Amino acid sequence: MTDLATQRTSQSAQFDGIDRVARLFAPRSIALIGATDKSWWSRAIFDNLHNHGFTGAIHLVNPKGIEVHGQQSVAAISDLPDDVDLAFVMTPTPVTLEVVQKVADHGIRSAVVLTSGFAEVGEEGAQLERALVDLARERDLTILGPNGNGFINAADGITPYGLTIPSPLISGPVGVVLQSGALASAVLGFAQARNVGISLLVSMGNESMLTMTDVMRHLVHDDNTKVIALFIESVRDPDQFLAVAREALAIGKPIVAMKVGRSETGARVAKAHTGSLVGNDRVVDAVFRQHGIVRVDSLEDLVTTAAVLAHCPLPGPRFGFVTASGGACEIIADRGEDEGIVIPPFAPETEERLREIVPPFASPHNPIDVTGYILVKREMMAQSLQAVVDDPNVDVAVVMADLPREEPADPLPALDSATRLSELAHAARKPVFVMQNTLTDITPYGRMVAEKSDYPTVLGGIEHGLTALGRATQWSAAYRGQHHATATQSEPLAVDVPPDGIWAEHVAAGFLQAHGVPVVPYRLVTDADAAVAAAEEFGYPVVVKLAADVEHKSDIGGVKLGLASPQAVRSAYDAVTAAGRAAGAQVAGAVVQPQRSGGVELLVGIVTDPVWGHVLALGMGGIWVEVLSDTTLRVLPVTRDEIRTALGELRGAALLSGARGTTAADMDALVDAVMATADLAGRLGDRLESLEINPLVVDGTRIEALDALITWRQP
Amino acid sequence: MTDLATQRTSQSAQFDGIDRVARLFAPRSIALIGATDKSWWSRAIFDNLHNHGFTGAIHLVNPKGIEVHGQQSVAAISDLPDDVDLAFVMTPTPVTLEVVQKVADHGIRSAVVLTSGFAEVGEEGAQLERALVDLARERDLTILGPNGNGFINAADGITPYGLTIPSPLISGPVGVVLQSGALASAVLGFAQARNVGISLLVSMGNESMLTMTDVMRHLVHDDNTKVIALFIESVRDPDQFLAVAREALAIGKPIVAMKVGRSETGARVAKAHTGSLVGNDRVVDAVFRQHGIVRVDSLEDLVTTAAVLAHCPLPGPRFGFVTASGGACEIIADRGEDEGIVIPPFAPETEERLREIVPPFASPHNPIDVTGYILVKREMMAQSLQAVVDDPNVDVAVVMADLPREEPADPLPALDSATRLSELAHAARKPVFVMQNTLTDITPYGRMVAEKSDYPTVLGGIEHGLTALGRATQWSAAYRGQHHATATQSEPLAVDVPPDGIWAEHVAAGFLQAHGVPVVPYRLVTDADAAVAAAEEFGYPVVVKLAADVEHKSDIGGVKLGLASPQAVRSAYDAVTAAGRAAGAQVAGAVVQPQRSGGVELLVGIVTDPVWGHVLALGMGGIWVEVLSDTTLRVLPVTRDEIRTALGELRGAALLSGARGTTAADMDALVDAVMATADLAGRLGDRLESLEINPLVVDGTRIEALDALITWRQP
Repeated sequence: MTDLATQRTSQSAQFDGIDRVARLFAPRSIALIGATDKSWWSRAIFDNLHNHGFTGAIHLVNPKGIEVHGQQSVAAISDLPDDVDLAFVMTPTPVTLEVVQKVADHGIRSAVVLTSGFAEVGEEGAQLERALVDLARERDLTILGPNGNGFINAADGITPYGLTIPSPLISGPVGVVLQSGALASAVLGFAQARNVGISLLVSMGNESMLTMTDVMRHLVHDDNTKVIALFIESVRDPDQFLAVAREALAIGKPIVAMKVGRSETGARVAKAHTGSLVGNDRVVDAVFRQHGIVRVDSLEDLVTTAAVLAHCPLPGPRFGFVTASGGACEIIADRGEDEGIVIPPFAPETEERLREIVPPFASPHNPIDVTGYILVKREMMAQSLQAVVDDPNVDVAVVMADLPREEPADPLPALDSATRLSELAHAARKPVFVMQNTLTDITPYGRMVAEKSDYPTVLGGIEHGLTALGRATQWSAAYRGQHHATATQSEPLAVDVPPDGIWAEHVAAGFLQAHGVPVVPYRLVTDADAAVAAAEEFGYPVVVKLAADVEHKSDIGGVKLGLASPQAVRSAYDAVTAAGRAAGAQVAGAVVQPQRSGGVELLVGIVTDPVWGHVLALGMGGIWVEVLSDTTLRVLPVTRDEIRTALGELRGAALLSGARGTTAADMDALVDAVMATADLAGRLGDRLESLEINPLVVDGTRIEALDALITWRQP
Repeated sequence: MTDLATQRTSQSAQFDGIDRVARLFAPRSIALIGATDKSWWSRAIFDNLHNHGFTGAIHLVNPKGIEVHGQQSVAAISDLPDDVDLAFVMTPTPVTLEVVQKVADHGIRSAVVLTSGFAEVGEEGAQLERALVDLARERDLTILGPNGNGFINAADGITPYGLTIPSPLISGPVGVVLQSGALASAVLGFAQARNVGISLLVSMGNESMLTMTDVMRHLVHDDNTKVIALFIESVRDPDQFLAVAREALAIGKPIVAMKVGRSETGARVAKAHTGSLVGNDRVVDAVFRQHGIVRVDSLEDLVTTAAVLAHCPLPGPRFGFVTASGGACEIIADRGEDEGIVIPPFAPETEERLREIVPPFASPHNPIDVTGYILVKREMMAQSLQAVVDDPNVDVAVVMADLPREEPADPLPALDSATRLSELAHAARKPVFVMQNTLTDITPYGRMVAEKSDYPTVLGGIEHGLTALGRATQWSAAYRGQHHATATQSEPLAVDVPPDGIWAEHVAAGFLQAHGVPVVPYRLVTDADAAVAAAEEFGYPVVVKLAADVEHKSDIGGVKLGLASPQAVRSAYDAVTAAGRAAGAQVAGAVVQPQRSGGVELLVGIVTDPVWGHVLALGMGGIWVEVLSDTTLRVLPVTRDEIRTALGELRGAALLSGARGTTAADMDALVDAVMATADLAGRLGDRLESLEINPLVVDGTRIEALDALITWRQP
């Protein structure tokens, strides 16, 4: 984590105890401060509390003490009863600080501040926000917001939320945290259309005190929540965020996140809107993957994937599909491949069984199409599903079906059929999902049927359904695989950092070698005779390089390659040192190395991301990096397994296993070399800005850094 | 087109006249043959005709002449009146041929055959189907099917369709053709949920006579149809399909297609289900792109993209977005970048104007977030949209909004607001789209509001909406760009094909050179002295290669590189010819070439796709092809512009413009060389199986084929 990130997280550090967060989300009585008939927000919050099951007391504060929303208000906060648990503040910006002061004076311990005009509008607002936070901290008040819509505790029917919540509010397993106010309503509406229930939904606002990470930590420990869904603009406290993610993965509570700011325009937009740091997007991918956070690209996928993750871990990656459409089978096959879903052949006994169920012209293969004959023999679908559920090759069964959209003249057949499917699914020893062909709403009637029959989760369309199943499969694998992962954090290592922040190459080489990173043999020499002696020892041809803290030595004639005779070495020594002096560098002499040829060039780099800290970049060297950007990233610390996986992800990975006449690499030794580099970076901590080995040449068992550059941050 | 494809298309060739297709889809009276209360299909078709506006006569034929679906039937086809235009045949498979005979005898000219049990079930069924087609052809009867659900002519309210059509059937601009029966209902249901109207929907069945291409051709000329949407399993008549696609592009009627069978499992499934050929999927991508066919990957995108394409061509690629959510802005920016949507900065005068509309803390940038203050000042949305519509930098405006889902207590405000937005959109001189945050249904109430207010097209969610807008932008560019494209087809060229189908390299080289493809200088020699003489002429170093029809000469020691002296050339000659003889080859001597170094290696290949015929593959040579599969494809014929674009698509394209110290390529000369190769393939026609130049070395202006292999198909 960077210093900047440390600063950013310090504010939320006081929220380590989760009890105060739990208290904020479970008030028994709520006071609306600034309640007025003139405010759309005030009306919405009041109605929400009344319409969605809040059984506690609702108090209104209006300076005139008049009737508001048909209920008598009090004129002052001090007039409120003593037992108010939560103040919902929607007073004008200029008086908000004073109001919050009075809230604290009255002994109220939690507040939602809806009011905007704080850090999001510029420096003046930011000052006001800091004053608000200072006050709250001093008075032990917990604030959600400002500039946020509040929360919806659907599990307990507590809904102090500033935008209208359409009925019905469906309670369920998904905890939702959003760094966007307006999209909270979009997510809520879409979840309702999908019949996906939520436990708690929180619109974070400015995160002046309570951060997204604090709410995540609360949800990790919340029994009503089986899966956490996030809409992220920026992560303000990366270390804590990742700690919570690790905890969630450890206890098997999945996190799915939509993180925006991928594109350059997006980064610009995010800056305009929140002023927050937006990390490099590929780093975000790497960080999330390493921590078992499922990333999705759309709000539809966020909700659909959360619905599937609520049933995770899945027992395995092998899916069996039952359809009544050959076209759907083909879409499933195409999209399944994209999403890494395994669609294995059915076991022979299953095919045998299916042959007896489906018409003779149907193929009893996975995915199975029972054909349009379903209209004649409706029981085929359930029978086929049962056969697929019983198949030992199948871990998860999916049946293409839909809930009825409107009440038919005779509702019983549809209800019976739904009940039979539900019973089959509940009796199955493996997960069973229902999937629609396309993403259309589950209508109110369909929802009623689903509730009555305790219907399985219905995935909205093949497109989003398979994305969700694929991501859930990946998460399940990450969950199962996590016990092998043991990233080590070694002791800090102190170094003398040069004033200009850069180490000359031979210094870097010596440093790397001293810490276990293999380096091509070299000799620092200070005259031509010593250069020749070194060359004789290594054997010809050799390379002679200027030893000086110059970044691009070859550009100034500081590197001479392929020297095959003592005379050539001698003149090379003279030439490179002269070139160094001509460039005004501090010349320490020259470095002699054996000339290598053959092997595969890798780049092993450590860079510092402003949000996530040290990131390991692995890539194929030369054109692979320069033209193809063929790199893969991992945030530190990493495990040996992760390094091995990362190397396998490179597009040029085949070159490491002997393609194109290369020698197959000694992968254990290669992983050792990368691990040593990563460990070293870990030990150097914040002082290390970047460390680039380019190339690391891999030639069978011979693995050597040929060039290295280390830059430091000034203390 | 291949011979196989020619065979496949011969059946539909008789449908060149589109009148008989138009006749089939516009019957004034329909007879249901095999009508019975016991059949779900019979009931569905009868109800569909009654419920969706068919005003013509419906006749029922049942062998017992009893009352069916509450209407008197006739016992025999011969008992039908004389004016029946269409027979809908749903009799049992064994009697279908006889029934169709009687249909023809009665003078009925069009038939839909719903009955299954034909080519889709195996050879016996295929025989029956051939007999059916022979009969129909002989009797001038046009058949849709068998094994198809019929069609829905929504424009004219004619719905002889075998699955229940839910109400309301929305008439509109999208013509839909599906090679899947069951998915037709899915598409229809989704289109209804999106309030997207269709003109004609056809479920193709087995395409025994009428093919997808025939229906496409009909739709190209159908004034009710503004866009054609296809669900494709396999294209049976590629040449005609592409001819129709070209015609559609020429007249500006977009085609959008979902083509399944991408994955290996998909290909297996498609084989199991249809027995049709499934082409290599990357070739399909290339073919579609070259012919302006928009390809999509989901049923949701198929319908949503069609809805946008109905408003195409778009005036340009620059989009202006109006939202009330910073989060939505960020999603739009991220996804817009994926889809190639341009989101330009607003003009200064627009920013100025927006500053006066939105609150001071809002940023007046594109996409604009008017902020949650919209709840206070609702007119901001329309005002901002007007400003964006007026912006000279914006070609298309998109406003994030939604239709009401349920009737509010006071319906007027929502209706007024919808009307104002509609008026603004209709008055605009550029397209205006409405986009929802997520994909949820347009409810019946919302549809009513949309109809009353003549509301703009509502895109279902940012995810699918931006995909549709991006694809529509690409189509509009293709439509505008098509006039530059003039692919030439040269005169056929006759060649003597060797018995084994492969030409020795030196023969291939001579052949290429004779037809304008630049080849590295070479000399065929038959003794060592001549080899030395050739080397002296070229200058050292040279390459000596065995001249014989051996595919991998270097594997048997038939290639000697870097020969720098007469002696080396002499022994190389002896060695390679000896190696050839040892391998049992017909040795014609050896080929001497100058040894080249430097330059960029390309692969230029022509391969034969079983469906689409000759495909040009361009790739970076060496590791680029072998490890990265860095190739791009074009079906022949191609234009020079397409070749230039294709070269630019290569991941290693930067190497052609001088990256990594390479010499920038003479692109005109390179395009010439590729064009000559493509032209040659066109002239050779079906006889050419493949032609591979690997490498074509490009070194500035020097462009030379260093190695070439041509394989032939036996006549």
